[in-house]
Amino acid sequence: MSYLDHIQACNRWDPADFLPFVVAGEHLGSVRRRFADALTALGSDFSLAGGALHWASAPAGFDDRSQAMSAICEDLERRGLISHRHGERYPVTPGRRDQARFLIDRACAPYFGVRAFGQHVNGFVRGDHGLMLWVARRSASRRVYPNYLDHVVAGGLPWGIGLAENLRKECWEEAALPADIADRARPVGAVTYCRDSDRGLKPDVIFCYDLELPPDVVPRCNDDEVSAFYLWPVEQVMTTVRDGDTFKLNCNLVIIDFLIRHGLIAPDDPDYVALVQGLRAPLGARE
Amino acid sequence: MSYLDHIQACNRWDPADFLPFVVAGEHLGSVRRRFADALTALGSDFSLAGGALHWASAPAGFDDRSQAMSAICEDLERRGLISHRHGERYPVTPGRRDQARFLIDRACAPYFGVRAFGQHVNGFVRGDHGLMLWVARRSASRRVYPNYLDHVVAGGLPWGIGLAENLRKECWEEAALPADIADRARPVGAVTYCRDSDRGLKPDVIFCYDLELPPDVVPRCNDDEVSAFYLWPVEQVMTTVRDGDTFKLNCNLVIIDFLIRHGLIAPDDPDYVALVQGLRAPLGARE
Repeated sequence: MSYLDHIQACNRWDPADFLPFVVAGEHLGSVRRRFADALTALGSDFSLAGGALHWASAPAGFDDRSQAMSAICEDLERRGLISHRHGERYPVTPGRRDQARFLIDRACAPYFGVRAFGQHVNGFVRGDHGLMLWVARRSASRRVYPNYLDHVVAGGLPWGIGLAENLRKECWEEAALPADIADRARPVGAVTYCRDSDRGLKPDVIFCYDLELPPDVVPRCNDDEVSAFYLWPVEQVMTTVRDGDTFKLNCNLVIIDFLIRHGLIAPDDPDYVALVQGLRAPLGARE
Repeated sequence: MSYLDHIQACNRWDPADFLPFVVAGEHLGSVRRRFADALTALGSDFSLAGGALHWASAPAGFDDRSQAMSAICEDLERRGLISHRHGERYPVTPGRRDQARFLIDRACAPYFGVRAFGQHVNGFVRGDHGLMLWVARRSASRRVYPNYLDHVVAGGLPWGIGLAENLRKECWEEAALPADIADRARPVGAVTYCRDSDRGLKPDVIFCYDLELPPDVVPRCNDDEVSAFYLWPVEQVMTTVRDGDTFKLNCNLVIIDFLIRHGLIAPDDPDYVALVQGLRAPLGARE
Protein backbone atom coordinates (compact mmCIF):
# COMPACT_ATOMS: atom_id res chain seq x y z
CA MET A 1 0.00 0.00 0.00
CA SER A 2 0.94 3.66 -0.38
CA TYR A 3 -0.79 6.94 0.38
CA LEU A 4 -1.64 7.24 -3.31
CA ASP A 5 -3.29 3.79 -3.32
CA HIS A 6 -5.86 5.06 -0.81
CA ILE A 7 -6.72 8.02 -3.02
CA GLN A 8 -7.07 5.72 -6.02
CA ALA A 9 -9.28 3.35 -3.97
CA CYS A 10 -11.65 6.25 -3.29
CA ASN A 11 -11.78 7.23 -6.96
CA ARG A 12 -12.34 3.84 -8.56
CA TRP A 13 -15.30 3.94 -10.93
CA ASP A 14 -15.98 3.45 -14.61
CA PRO A 15 -18.23 6.09 -16.20
CA ALA A 16 -19.33 3.39 -18.69
CA ASP A 17 -21.12 1.57 -15.85
CA PHE A 18 -23.36 4.54 -15.04
CA LEU A 19 -26.00 6.71 -16.66
CA PRO A 20 -26.74 10.32 -15.76
CA PHE A 21 -29.70 10.69 -13.39
CA VAL A 22 -31.75 13.61 -14.69
CA VAL A 23 -34.66 15.39 -13.02
CA ALA A 24 -36.51 18.19 -14.82
CA GLY A 25 -33.63 18.49 -17.26
CA GLU A 26 -30.96 18.74 -14.56
CA HIS A 27 -28.13 16.25 -14.14
CA LEU A 28 -28.27 15.45 -10.41
CA GLY A 29 -26.54 12.11 -10.10
CA SER A 30 -25.48 8.85 -11.75
CA VAL A 31 -27.20 5.45 -11.68
CA ARG A 32 -25.72 2.06 -12.37
CA ARG A 33 -27.05 0.72 -15.68
CA ARG A 34 -28.68 -2.34 -14.17
CA PHE A 35 -30.37 -0.24 -11.46
CA ALA A 36 -31.68 2.06 -14.21
CA ASP A 37 -33.04 -0.97 -16.06
CA ALA A 38 -34.73 -2.24 -12.89
CA LEU A 39 -36.33 1.17 -12.29
CA THR A 40 -37.72 1.49 -15.80
CA ALA A 41 -39.05 -2.08 -15.65
CA LEU A 42 -41.19 -1.18 -12.63
CA GLY A 43 -43.53 1.27 -14.37
CA SER A 44 -43.61 4.77 -15.73
CA ASP A 45 -41.93 6.74 -12.90
CA PHE A 46 -38.56 6.46 -14.63
CA SER A 47 -37.64 6.45 -18.31
CA LEU A 48 -34.52 6.11 -20.42
CA ALA A 49 -33.91 8.79 -23.03
CA GLY A 50 -30.80 10.28 -24.61
CA GLY A 51 -28.51 7.96 -22.66
CA ALA A 52 -29.84 9.15 -19.30
CA LEU A 53 -32.29 7.98 -16.66
CA HIS A 54 -35.08 10.52 -16.19
CA TRP A 55 -37.38 10.71 -13.18
CA ALA A 56 -40.41 11.21 -15.42
CA SER A 57 -43.06 11.46 -12.71
CA ALA A 58 -41.16 13.95 -10.49
CA PRO A 59 -43.62 16.48 -9.03
CA ALA A 60 -42.76 20.15 -9.36
CA GLY A 61 -42.28 21.44 -5.80
CA PHE A 62 -39.46 20.71 -3.33
CA ASP A 63 -41.72 19.15 -0.70
CA ASP A 64 -43.85 17.16 -3.12
CA ARG A 65 -40.77 15.91 -4.92
CA SER A 66 -39.13 14.88 -1.64
CA GLN A 67 -42.28 13.04 -0.54
CA ALA A 68 -42.57 11.27 -3.88
CA MET A 69 -38.91 10.13 -3.69
CA SER A 70 -39.52 8.91 -0.15
CA ALA A 71 -42.44 6.76 -1.34
CA ILE A 72 -40.33 5.45 -4.24
CA CYS A 73 -37.47 4.48 -1.93
CA GLU A 74 -39.86 2.74 0.47
CA ASP A 75 -41.19 0.72 -2.45
CA LEU A 76 -37.67 -0.05 -3.73
CA GLU A 77 -36.62 -1.29 -0.30
CA ARG A 78 -39.66 -3.57 -0.15
CA ARG A 79 -38.71 -4.98 -3.55
CA GLY A 80 -35.13 -5.55 -2.42
CA LEU A 81 -33.71 -3.10 -4.95
CA ILE A 82 -32.41 -0.88 -2.15
CA SER A 83 -30.70 -2.48 0.87
CA HIS A 84 -32.21 -0.29 3.60
CA ARG A 85 -33.22 3.20 4.54
CA HIS A 86 -31.28 5.27 7.08
CA GLY A 87 -33.86 7.74 8.30
CA GLU A 88 -31.77 10.88 7.77
CA ARG A 89 -32.45 12.94 4.68
CA TYR A 90 -29.77 14.27 2.34
CA PRO A 91 -30.15 17.12 -0.16
CA VAL A 92 -30.08 16.22 -3.85
CA THR A 93 -28.13 19.04 -5.50
CA PRO A 94 -26.22 19.83 -8.69
CA GLY A 95 -23.76 21.86 -6.59
CA ARG A 96 -23.98 23.04 -3.00
CA ARG A 97 -26.02 21.78 -0.05
CA ASP A 98 -28.14 24.94 -0.16
CA GLN A 99 -29.06 24.32 -3.80
CA ALA A 100 -31.11 21.20 -3.00
CA ARG A 101 -33.79 20.28 -5.54
CA PHE A 102 -35.36 17.68 -3.24
CA LEU A 103 -34.42 15.31 -0.39
CA ILE A 104 -33.54 11.62 -0.39
CA ASP A 105 -32.91 9.09 2.35
CA ARG A 106 -29.21 9.00 3.21
CA ALA A 107 -28.81 5.27 2.53
CA CYS A 108 -30.56 5.63 -0.84
CA ALA A 109 -28.37 8.48 -2.07
CA PRO A 110 -25.63 6.25 -3.61
CA TYR A 111 -28.20 4.32 -5.67
CA PHE A 112 -28.94 7.59 -7.44
CA GLY A 113 -25.28 8.68 -7.26
CA VAL A 114 -26.08 12.06 -5.77
CA ARG A 115 -23.48 14.31 -4.20
CA ALA A 116 -23.16 13.79 -0.42
CA PHE A 117 -21.51 15.99 2.19
CA GLY A 118 -19.79 15.12 5.46
CA GLN A 119 -17.54 16.49 8.19
CA HIS A 120 -14.38 14.84 9.58
CA VAL A 121 -12.47 16.11 12.59
CA ASN A 122 -8.74 15.52 13.08
CA GLY A 123 -8.57 15.57 16.89
CA PHE A 124 -4.97 16.02 17.97
CA VAL A 125 -2.82 16.80 21.00
CA ARG A 126 0.56 18.52 21.02
CA GLY A 127 2.46 16.33 23.49
CA ASP A 128 5.98 16.48 24.87
CA HIS A 129 7.02 13.96 22.25
CA GLY A 130 5.27 15.53 19.27
CA LEU A 131 1.87 15.38 17.69
CA MET A 132 -0.64 12.74 18.85
CA LEU A 133 -3.88 11.91 17.04
CA TRP A 134 -7.09 10.64 18.56
CA VAL A 135 -8.37 7.58 16.70
CA ALA A 136 -11.75 5.88 17.13
CA ARG A 137 -12.57 2.20 16.71
CA ARG A 138 -16.00 1.74 15.11
CA SER A 139 -18.35 -0.66 16.90
CA ALA A 140 -18.65 -4.25 15.72
CA SER A 141 -22.38 -3.66 15.29
CA ARG A 142 -22.05 -0.86 12.70
CA ARG A 143 -23.65 -1.65 9.37
CA VAL A 144 -20.82 -0.10 7.37
CA TYR A 145 -17.12 -0.57 8.19
CA PRO A 146 -17.60 -2.45 11.52
CA ASN A 147 -14.42 -2.48 13.65
CA TYR A 148 -12.59 -0.13 11.27
CA LEU A 149 -10.57 2.79 12.59
CA ASP A 150 -12.17 6.20 12.22
CA HIS A 151 -11.73 9.86 13.07
CA VAL A 152 -12.52 10.90 16.65
CA VAL A 153 -15.58 12.65 15.20
CA ALA A 154 -16.95 12.19 11.67
CA GLY A 155 -20.40 12.23 10.20
CA GLY A 156 -22.62 12.93 7.28
CA LEU A 157 -24.35 16.27 6.83
CA PRO A 158 -28.12 15.80 6.72
CA TRP A 159 -30.46 18.41 5.32
CA GLY A 160 -31.66 21.29 7.48
CA ILE A 161 -28.75 21.65 9.90
CA GLY A 162 -25.84 24.08 9.70
CA LEU A 163 -22.20 23.04 9.67
CA ALA A 164 -21.35 24.37 13.14
CA GLU A 165 -24.50 22.90 14.66
CA ASN A 166 -23.94 19.48 13.09
CA LEU A 167 -20.34 19.50 14.28
CA ARG A 168 -21.45 20.19 17.87
CA LYS A 169 -24.04 17.41 17.60
CA GLU A 170 -21.54 14.88 16.28
CA CYS A 171 -18.85 15.89 18.79
CA TRP A 172 -21.29 15.25 21.62
CA GLU A 173 -22.89 12.08 20.27
CA GLU A 174 -19.73 10.37 19.10
CA ALA A 175 -17.08 11.52 21.58
CA ALA A 176 -18.87 13.31 24.47
CA LEU A 177 -17.01 16.51 23.58
CA PRO A 178 -18.98 19.55 24.81
CA ALA A 179 -19.95 22.50 22.62
CA ASP A 180 -17.16 24.79 23.82
CA ILE A 181 -14.61 22.20 22.70
CA ALA A 182 -16.44 21.48 19.44
CA ASP A 183 -16.42 25.18 18.61
CA ARG A 184 -12.61 25.19 18.64
CA ALA A 185 -12.56 22.95 15.56
CA ARG A 186 -11.04 24.95 12.70
CA PRO A 187 -12.18 24.34 9.11
CA VAL A 188 -9.07 23.61 7.05
CA GLY A 189 -10.34 22.60 3.63
CA ALA A 190 -12.13 19.71 1.97
CA VAL A 191 -11.39 16.47 0.20
CA THR A 192 -13.51 15.25 -2.70
CA TYR A 193 -13.69 11.85 -4.33
CA CYS A 194 -16.01 9.71 -6.44
CA ARG A 195 -16.24 5.98 -5.80
CA ASP A 196 -18.16 2.97 -7.10
CA SER A 197 -19.58 1.33 -3.97
CA ASP A 198 -21.85 -1.68 -3.43
CA ARG A 199 -24.87 0.57 -3.42
CA GLY A 200 -23.90 2.83 -6.32
CA LEU A 201 -21.82 5.91 -7.01
CA LYS A 202 -20.55 8.05 -4.15
CA PRO A 203 -19.43 11.55 -5.22
CA ASP A 204 -18.55 12.90 -1.76
CA VAL A 205 -17.42 16.22 -0.32
CA ILE A 206 -15.81 15.94 3.12
CA PHE A 207 -15.26 19.19 5.00
CA CYS A 208 -12.10 18.76 7.10
CA TYR A 209 -11.46 20.26 10.52
CA ASP A 210 -8.48 20.38 12.87
CA LEU A 211 -9.34 20.28 16.57
CA GLU A 212 -6.43 20.68 18.96
CA LEU A 213 -7.52 19.08 22.23
CA PRO A 214 -5.99 19.90 25.61
CA PRO A 215 -4.21 16.85 27.10
CA ASP A 216 -6.84 16.56 29.84
CA VAL A 217 -9.80 16.36 27.47
CA VAL A 218 -10.42 12.69 26.73
CA PRO A 219 -13.14 11.64 24.28
CA ARG A 220 -15.42 8.88 25.54
CA CYS A 221 -18.05 6.73 23.88
CA ASN A 222 -21.41 8.40 24.19
CA ASP A 223 -23.42 6.19 21.88
CA ASP A 224 -23.01 2.73 20.40
CA GLU A 225 -21.14 3.89 17.29
CA VAL A 226 -17.63 3.72 18.78
CA SER A 227 -16.13 0.91 20.85
CA ALA A 228 -12.87 2.62 21.88
CA PHE A 229 -10.69 5.71 21.51
CA TYR A 230 -6.90 5.63 21.22
CA LEU A 231 -4.36 8.45 21.41
CA TRP A 232 -1.63 7.53 18.94
CA PRO A 233 1.67 9.22 18.08
CA VAL A 234 1.29 10.66 14.59
CA GLU A 235 4.03 8.32 13.33
CA GLN A 236 1.83 5.34 14.25
CA VAL A 237 -1.09 6.90 12.39
CA MET A 238 1.17 7.48 9.35
CA THR A 239 2.37 3.88 9.11
CA THR A 240 -1.13 2.53 9.80
CA VAL A 241 -2.57 4.61 6.97
CA ARG A 242 0.29 4.07 4.53
CA ASP A 243 0.77 0.33 4.97
CA GLY A 244 -2.73 -0.98 5.59
CA ASP A 245 -6.44 -0.66 5.18
CA THR A 246 -7.67 -0.64 8.77
CA PHE A 247 -9.09 2.90 8.55
CA LYS A 248 -12.51 3.53 7.04
CA LEU A 249 -11.80 4.31 3.39
CA ASN A 250 -12.36 8.07 3.32
CA CYS A 251 -10.57 8.64 6.66
CA ASN A 252 -7.31 7.79 4.92
CA LEU A 253 -7.79 10.79 2.60
CA VAL A 254 -8.59 13.23 5.40
CA ILE A 255 -5.55 12.02 7.35
CA ILE A 256 -3.28 12.31 4.29
CA ASP A 257 -4.51 15.92 3.93
CA PHE A 258 -3.73 16.49 7.63
CA LEU A 259 -0.22 15.06 7.21
CA ILE A 260 0.44 17.31 4.19
CA ARG A 261 -0.84 20.45 5.92
CA HIS A 262 1.29 19.71 8.98
CA GLY A 263 4.44 19.13 6.93
CA LEU A 264 4.59 15.42 7.85
CA ILE A 265 4.32 14.42 4.22
CA ALA A 266 6.79 16.80 2.57
CA PRO A 267 7.37 17.95 -1.01
CA ASP A 268 10.28 15.52 -1.36
CA ASP A 269 7.73 12.68 -1.40
CA PRO A 270 7.71 11.50 -5.03
CA ASP A 271 3.88 11.40 -4.98
CA TYR A 272 3.45 14.86 -3.39
CA VAL A 273 1.80 16.68 -6.29
CA ALA A 274 -0.28 13.61 -7.20
CA LEU A 275 -1.48 13.42 -3.58
CA VAL A 276 -2.35 17.12 -3.34
CA GLN A 277 -4.26 17.00 -6.62
CA GLY A 278 -5.77 13.57 -5.97
CA LEU A 279 -7.36 14.68 -2.70
CA ARG A 280 -9.61 17.00 -4.76
CA ALA A 281 -10.83 14.65 -7.47
CA PRO A 282 -13.73 15.58 -9.75
CA LEU A 283 -17.17 14.70 -8.35
CA GLY A 284 -18.27 12.50 -11.23
CA ALA A 285 -18.55 12.80 -14.97
CA ARG A 286 -20.55 16.00 -14.99
CA GLU A 287 -17.52 18.18 -14.30
CA MET B 1 -13.48 40.37 -8.32
CA SER B 2 -13.87 37.29 -6.16
CA TYR B 3 -11.48 34.64 -4.88
CA LEU B 4 -12.69 32.32 -7.61
CA ASP B 5 -11.91 34.93 -10.30
CA HIS B 6 -8.24 34.74 -9.35
CA ILE B 7 -8.21 30.97 -9.74
CA GLN B 8 -9.91 31.28 -13.11
CA ALA B 9 -7.39 33.96 -14.18
CA CYS B 10 -4.56 31.48 -13.48
CA ASN B 11 -6.27 28.74 -15.49
CA ARG B 12 -7.20 30.63 -18.63
CA TRP B 13 -6.00 28.82 -21.73
CA ASP B 14 -7.51 27.21 -24.79
CA PRO B 15 -6.07 23.79 -25.67
CA ALA B 16 -6.93 24.55 -29.33
CA ASP B 17 -4.23 27.26 -29.35
CA PHE B 18 -1.45 24.83 -28.45
CA LEU B 19 0.22 21.72 -29.82
CA PRO B 20 1.94 19.04 -27.74
CA PHE B 21 5.71 19.47 -27.55
CA VAL B 22 7.20 16.01 -27.99
CA VAL B 23 10.80 14.90 -27.52
CA ALA B 24 11.83 11.30 -28.24
CA GLY B 25 8.18 10.26 -28.14
CA GLU B 26 7.48 11.93 -24.81
CA HIS B 27 4.93 14.71 -24.31
CA LEU B 28 6.93 17.27 -22.33
CA GLY B 29 5.09 20.54 -22.92
CA SER B 30 2.79 22.59 -25.16
CA VAL B 31 3.68 25.16 -27.82
CA ARG B 32 1.53 27.89 -29.25
CA ARG B 33 0.63 27.07 -32.86
CA ARG B 34 2.29 30.15 -34.32
CA PHE B 35 5.48 29.50 -32.33
CA ALA B 36 5.46 25.94 -33.66
CA ASP B 37 5.09 27.28 -37.20
CA ALA B 38 7.97 29.71 -36.65
CA LEU B 39 10.20 26.91 -35.34
CA THR B 40 9.51 24.57 -38.26
CA ALA B 41 10.11 27.41 -40.75
CA LEU B 42 13.65 27.87 -39.42
CA GLY B 43 15.05 24.53 -40.53
CA SER B 44 14.97 20.85 -39.66
CA ASP B 45 15.44 20.97 -35.87
CA PHE B 46 11.67 20.89 -35.34
CA SER B 47 8.94 19.12 -37.30
CA LEU B 48 5.18 18.83 -37.20
CA ALA B 49 3.70 15.33 -37.19
CA GLY B 50 0.55 13.77 -35.79
CA GLY B 51 -0.70 17.12 -34.49
CA ALA B 52 2.40 17.67 -32.35
CA LEU B 53 5.66 19.59 -32.52
CA HIS B 54 8.65 17.25 -32.40
CA TRP B 55 12.18 18.29 -31.55
CA ALA B 56 13.57 16.18 -34.38
CA SER B 57 17.26 16.94 -33.87
CA ALA B 58 17.30 16.35 -30.09
CA PRO B 59 20.55 14.58 -29.11
CA ALA B 60 20.27 11.48 -26.93
CA GLY B 61 22.01 12.33 -23.65
CA PHE B 62 20.87 14.71 -20.88
CA ASP B 63 23.88 17.01 -21.16
CA ASP B 64 24.02 17.04 -24.95
CA ARG B 65 20.30 17.69 -25.16
CA SER B 66 20.52 20.52 -22.64
CA GLN B 67 23.41 22.10 -24.55
CA ALA B 68 21.55 21.80 -27.84
CA MET B 69 18.43 23.45 -26.34
CA SER B 70 20.64 26.22 -24.95
CA ALA B 71 22.05 26.91 -28.44
CA ILE B 72 18.54 26.85 -29.92
CA CYS B 73 17.25 29.36 -27.36
CA GLU B 74 20.22 31.64 -27.95
CA ASP B 75 19.41 31.61 -31.67
CA LEU B 76 15.69 32.16 -31.02
CA GLU B 77 16.45 35.17 -28.82
CA ARG B 78 18.67 36.64 -31.53
CA ARG B 79 15.83 36.20 -34.04
CA GLY B 80 13.36 37.86 -31.65
CA LEU B 81 11.23 34.73 -31.31
CA ILE B 82 12.03 34.56 -27.59
CA SER B 83 11.97 37.76 -25.51
CA HIS B 84 15.04 37.11 -23.35
CA ARG B 85 16.97 34.49 -21.44
CA HIS B 86 17.08 34.42 -17.65
CA GLY B 87 20.29 32.55 -16.92
CA GLU B 88 18.80 30.00 -14.52
CA ARG B 89 18.06 26.54 -15.87
CA TYR B 90 14.81 24.67 -15.29
CA PRO B 91 14.24 20.92 -15.64
CA VAL B 92 12.06 19.75 -18.55
CA THR B 93 10.04 16.87 -17.13
CA PRO B 94 6.87 14.87 -17.80
CA GLY B 95 6.30 14.69 -14.02
CA ARG B 96 8.61 15.54 -11.15
CA ARG B 97 11.67 17.77 -10.94
CA ASP B 98 13.91 14.72 -10.50
CA GLN B 99 12.60 13.19 -13.74
CA ALA B 100 14.20 15.86 -15.94
CA ARG B 101 14.92 14.87 -19.53
CA PHE B 102 17.01 17.98 -20.21
CA LEU B 103 17.37 21.59 -19.06
CA ILE B 104 16.00 24.82 -20.50
CA ASP B 105 16.54 28.48 -19.67
CA ARG B 106 13.91 29.61 -17.15
CA ALA B 107 12.59 32.45 -19.34
CA CYS B 108 12.31 30.11 -22.33
CA ALA B 109 10.30 27.43 -20.47
CA PRO B 110 6.84 28.96 -21.20
CA TYR B 111 7.54 29.08 -24.95
CA PHE B 112 7.74 25.29 -24.82
CA GLY B 113 4.98 25.08 -22.18
CA VAL B 114 7.01 22.92 -19.84
CA ARG B 115 6.09 22.30 -16.23
CA ALA B 116 7.76 24.72 -13.81
CA PHE B 117 8.16 24.54 -10.05
CA GLY B 118 8.33 27.26 -7.42
CA GLN B 119 8.17 27.91 -3.68
CA HIS B 120 6.03 30.55 -1.93
CA VAL B 121 6.27 31.38 1.77
CA ASN B 122 3.35 32.77 3.77
CA GLY B 123 5.26 34.73 6.42
CA PHE B 124 2.93 35.53 9.30
CA VAL B 125 2.92 36.83 12.87
CA ARG B 126 0.43 35.97 15.60
CA GLY B 127 -0.19 39.38 17.10
CA ASP B 128 -2.33 40.59 19.99
CA HIS B 129 -5.04 41.49 17.48
CA GLY B 130 -4.92 38.32 15.41
CA LEU B 131 -2.99 37.06 12.45
CA MET B 132 -0.74 39.47 10.49
CA LEU B 133 0.83 38.67 7.11
CA TRP B 134 4.11 39.97 5.74
CA VAL B 135 3.64 41.36 2.24
CA ALA B 136 6.40 42.41 -0.17
CA ARG B 137 6.24 45.14 -2.83
CA ARG B 138 8.15 44.11 -5.97
CA SER B 139 10.65 46.65 -7.28
CA ALA B 140 9.66 48.99 -10.10
CA SER B 141 12.62 47.65 -12.07
CA ARG B 142 11.44 44.01 -12.16
CA ARG B 143 10.84 42.67 -15.64
CA VAL B 144 7.67 40.80 -14.63
CA TYR B 145 4.98 42.25 -12.36
CA PRO B 146 6.85 45.47 -11.39
CA ASN B 147 5.34 47.15 -8.29
CA TYR B 148 2.94 44.26 -7.66
CA LEU B 149 2.47 42.85 -4.17
CA ASP B 150 4.16 39.53 -3.49
CA HIS B 151 4.88 36.97 -0.78
CA VAL B 152 7.62 37.83 1.71
CA VAL B 153 9.66 35.10 0.01
CA ALA B 154 8.82 33.43 -3.30
CA GLY B 155 10.90 32.04 -6.09
CA GLY B 156 11.28 29.56 -8.87
CA LEU B 157 13.05 26.24 -8.34
CA PRO B 158 16.01 25.96 -10.69
CA TRP B 159 17.65 22.64 -11.52
CA GLY B 160 20.28 21.16 -9.21
CA ILE B 161 19.24 22.60 -5.87
CA GLY B 162 17.13 20.95 -3.16
CA LEU B 163 13.93 22.42 -1.78
CA ALA B 164 15.31 23.26 1.68
CA GLU B 165 18.49 24.75 0.22
CA ASN B 166 16.60 26.90 -2.30
CA LEU B 167 14.26 28.11 0.44
CA ARG B 168 17.22 29.19 2.58
CA LYS B 169 18.76 30.95 -0.43
CA GLU B 170 15.55 32.80 -1.30
CA CYS B 171 14.85 33.73 2.34
CA TRP B 172 18.26 35.32 2.57
CA GLU B 173 18.35 36.99 -0.84
CA GLU B 174 14.80 38.34 -0.80
CA ALA B 175 14.13 39.11 2.86
CA ALA B 176 17.47 38.83 4.74
CA LEU B 177 15.99 36.01 6.82
CA PRO B 178 18.78 33.78 8.17
CA ALA B 179 18.90 30.00 7.74
CA ASP B 180 17.63 29.17 11.23
CA ILE B 181 14.48 31.19 10.50
CA ALA B 182 14.12 29.78 6.97
CA ASP B 183 14.29 26.26 8.36
CA ARG B 184 11.16 26.92 10.43
CA ALA B 185 9.07 27.19 7.24
CA ARG B 186 6.62 24.29 7.21
CA PRO B 187 5.54 22.72 3.91
CA VAL B 188 1.74 22.80 3.82
CA GLY B 189 0.79 21.64 0.33
CA ALA B 190 0.90 22.88 -3.23
CA VAL B 191 -1.21 24.80 -5.69
CA THR B 192 -1.22 23.95 -9.39
CA TYR B 193 -2.50 25.91 -12.34
CA CYS B 194 -2.07 26.22 -16.11
CA ARG B 195 -2.16 29.62 -17.75
CA ASP B 196 -1.77 31.14 -21.21
CA SER B 197 0.81 33.91 -20.76
CA ASP B 198 2.47 36.31 -23.18
CA ARG B 199 5.36 33.95 -23.63
CA GLY B 200 3.38 30.73 -23.83
CA LEU B 201 1.80 28.13 -21.58
CA LYS B 202 2.65 28.03 -17.88
CA PRO B 203 1.72 24.73 -16.17
CA ASP B 204 3.07 25.55 -12.71
CA VAL B 205 3.46 23.72 -9.41
CA ILE B 206 3.93 26.02 -6.41
CA PHE B 207 5.03 24.37 -3.17
CA CYS B 208 3.47 26.35 -0.30
CA TYR B 209 5.02 27.01 3.09
CA ASP B 210 3.82 28.62 6.31
CA LEU B 211 6.50 30.49 8.25
CA GLU B 212 5.47 31.91 11.61
CA LEU B 213 7.83 34.75 12.36
CA PRO B 214 8.51 36.08 15.85
CA PRO B 215 7.34 39.71 16.20
CA ASP B 216 10.93 40.94 16.47
CA VAL B 217 12.06 39.38 13.19
CA VAL B 218 11.58 41.96 10.46
CA PRO B 219 12.34 41.10 6.83
CA ARG B 220 14.45 43.67 5.00
CA CYS B 221 15.36 44.16 1.37
CA ASN B 222 18.60 42.37 0.65
CA ASP B 223 18.65 42.68 -3.12
CA ASP B 224 16.96 44.85 -5.71
CA GLU B 225 13.93 42.58 -6.15
CA VAL B 226 11.80 44.09 -3.36
CA SER B 227 11.18 47.77 -2.65
CA ALA B 228 9.33 47.42 0.67
CA PHE B 229 7.84 45.01 3.20
CA TYR B 230 4.52 45.58 4.99
CA LEU B 231 3.00 43.74 7.96
CA TRP B 232 -0.73 43.68 7.30
CA PRO B 233 -3.65 42.38 9.38
CA VAL B 234 -4.96 39.28 7.62
CA GLU B 235 -8.30 41.06 7.03
CA GLN B 236 -6.48 43.66 4.91
CA VAL B 237 -4.81 40.90 2.92
CA MET B 238 -8.20 39.22 2.42
CA THR B 239 -9.93 42.29 1.01
CA THR B 240 -6.89 43.19 -1.10
CA VAL B 241 -6.86 39.74 -2.67
CA ARG B 242 -10.62 39.41 -3.02
CA ASP B 243 -11.40 42.84 -4.43
CA GLY B 244 -8.41 43.68 -6.58
CA ASP B 245 -5.49 42.57 -8.67
CA THR B 246 -2.55 44.21 -6.94
CA PHE B 247 -0.90 40.90 -6.00
CA LYS B 248 1.23 39.00 -8.50
CA LEU B 249 -1.20 36.57 -10.15
CA ASN B 250 -0.14 33.30 -8.53
CA CYS B 251 0.27 34.87 -5.05
CA ASN B 252 -3.51 35.20 -4.91
CA LEU B 253 -3.84 31.41 -5.14
CA VAL B 254 -1.28 30.69 -2.45
CA ILE B 255 -2.94 33.23 -0.15
CA ILE B 256 -6.42 31.77 -0.80
CA ASP B 257 -5.00 28.37 0.16
CA PHE B 258 -3.56 29.95 3.35
CA LEU B 259 -6.94 31.51 4.20
CA ILE B 260 -8.71 28.15 3.73
CA ARG B 261 -6.20 26.23 5.84
CA HIS B 262 -6.44 28.80 8.62
CA GLY B 263 -10.24 28.76 8.65
CA LEU B 264 -10.51 32.36 7.40
CA ILE B 265 -12.40 31.26 4.32
CA ALA B 266 -14.91 28.81 5.80
CA PRO B 267 -17.12 26.08 4.33
CA ASP B 268 -20.12 28.42 4.41
CA ASP B 269 -18.51 30.35 1.54
CA PRO B 270 -20.62 29.45 -1.52
CA ASP B 271 -17.46 28.90 -3.58
CA TYR B 272 -15.68 26.77 -0.96
CA VAL B 273 -15.55 23.45 -2.82
CA ALA B 274 -14.84 25.19 -6.13
CA LEU B 275 -11.94 27.04 -4.49
CA VAL B 276 -10.47 23.93 -2.85
CA GLN B 277 -10.67 22.00 -6.12
CA GLY B 278 -9.65 24.96 -8.29
CA LEU B 279 -6.39 25.46 -6.40
CA ARG B 280 -5.25 22.07 -7.76
CA ALA B 281 -6.09 22.42 -11.44
CA PRO B 282 -4.75 19.97 -14.03
CA LEU B 283 -1.30 20.84 -15.41
CA GLY B 284 -2.30 20.99 -19.05
CA ALA B 285 -4.06 18.76 -21.54
CA ARG B 286 -1.96 15.68 -20.98
CA GLU B 287 -3.69 14.76 -17.74
